[in-house]
Amino acid sequence: MKHKNFAVVLAGCGVNDGSEIHEAVLTLLAIDKTGSSYQCFAPDVNQYHVINHLNGNSVKESRNVLIEAARIARSDIKKLSEFNPKDFDAIIFPGGFGVAKNLFTYAIDGPDCLVNPETVECIYSALEAGLPIGAMCISPLLITRVLGFGTVTIGNDITTANAVESLGGTHLNSERDDIVIDKENKIVSTPAYMLNSPISVVAKGIENLVNALYDLM
Amino acid sequence: MKHKNFAVVLAGCGVNDGSEIHEAVLTLLAIDKTGSSYQCFAPDVNQYHVINHLNGNSVKESRNVLIEAARIARSDIKKLSEFNPKDFDAIIFPGGFGVAKNLFTYAIDGPDCLVNPETVECIYSALEAGLPIGAMCISPLLITRVLGFGTVTIGNDITTANAVESLGGTHLNSERDDIVIDKENKIVSTPAYMLNSPISVVAKGIENLVNALYDLM
Repeated sequence: MKHKNFAVVLAGCGVNDGSEIHEAVLTLLAIDKTGSSYQCFAPDVNQYHVINHLNGNSVKESRNVLIEAARIARSDIKKLSEFNPKDFDAIIFPGGFGVAKNLFTYAIDGPDCLVNPETVECIYSALEAGLPIGAMCISPLLITRVLGFGTVTIGNDITTANAVESLGGTHLNSERDDIVIDKENKIVSTPAYMLNSPISVVAKGIENLVNALYDLM
Repeated sequence: MKHKNFAVVLAGCGVNDGSEIHEAVLTLLAIDKTGSSYQCFAPDVNQYHVINHLNGNSVKESRNVLIEAARIARSDIKKLSEFNPKDFDAIIFPGGFGVAKNLFTYAIDGPDCLVNPETVECIYSALEAGLPIGAMCISPLLITRVLGFGTVTIGNDITTANAVESLGGTHLNSERDDIVIDKENKIVSTPAYMLNSPISVVAKGIENLVNALYDLM
């Protein structure tokens, strides 16, 4: 396969307050398997909060999204404000509750939520440059919140699917490693851990997503 | 393939002060691909230190190995003191500098290093129960430090290979996704990120390791 450049946008490090780690790592794996490169990005902002992942409680601590995401990226990460669509052939948003807390505030505010400005700028500029956009787990809702259109899947959760529709998107239900391809808007989505699948099924869905993005370039 | 139970021992969350995240996730993926189950464990102790993975500096902060490892395990993790070899068919140690800081002190003290007592107990009990032991990256040195014997690989780093030999082990050089199988002692090792390979090559080496452990059961 011809070498391509993927941007991957992270939201911290850990399913409950950052990026879902498995989804992020499996995204990098799927990109590398196509013989392509990746560059990770994250906004240089504080996390909404820090969750103790052993007991689920919020702790009085402050962590930075970019610094924590650097753990997943093995230190090779850039500020999201430095993202330039001209350097890339596609962009991918892995999921995790941290997306819905740090990149936009859906987990706190519901559909009437705010979006981190660098994330808005990043998604708009990717769209304008014609880059295919990949989104998994809760991230398809982020794309819908910013664009106000597009056909995506977040699996089959009714509340989240309704949120997609109320924000101007079209939601299609999907199973485990399915993907939904919006050819017109070049958006590919997959439920990943929204359906609590085993890790190998999540890996397959993400591989399907990366390969579909590749075909849309 | 017949269902088996794997224990996976983590050392935190992040290559520089905890478990190498990619290696840990790819271990869980390889186990799941065999149709087997995994249970993650980590010692309930403070990390040696906390590293800012963006700039590599140590920061004045305290984090707990078990609580941070829970991020990789998606909260499904137990204290290493609760590990019982009777519940498992194999045990795997992913790598990362955190192994050589939190599970034993090789990164600080060199070959004349100390080992976390729960880790010693865990490795001894696995050996006594006849469980195959998998180790990647720097972890084969941990196994050698505890057992004082065994044939392993850490890739081709001369200092680390000499440390294996000085601690009573036998070191064999290896490339990227190679594995070394010590059939007598049921130890399987692979260099993973000790050789700074692309993630898909690391994934292949770990898959080879898991499959070899499976064959040794």
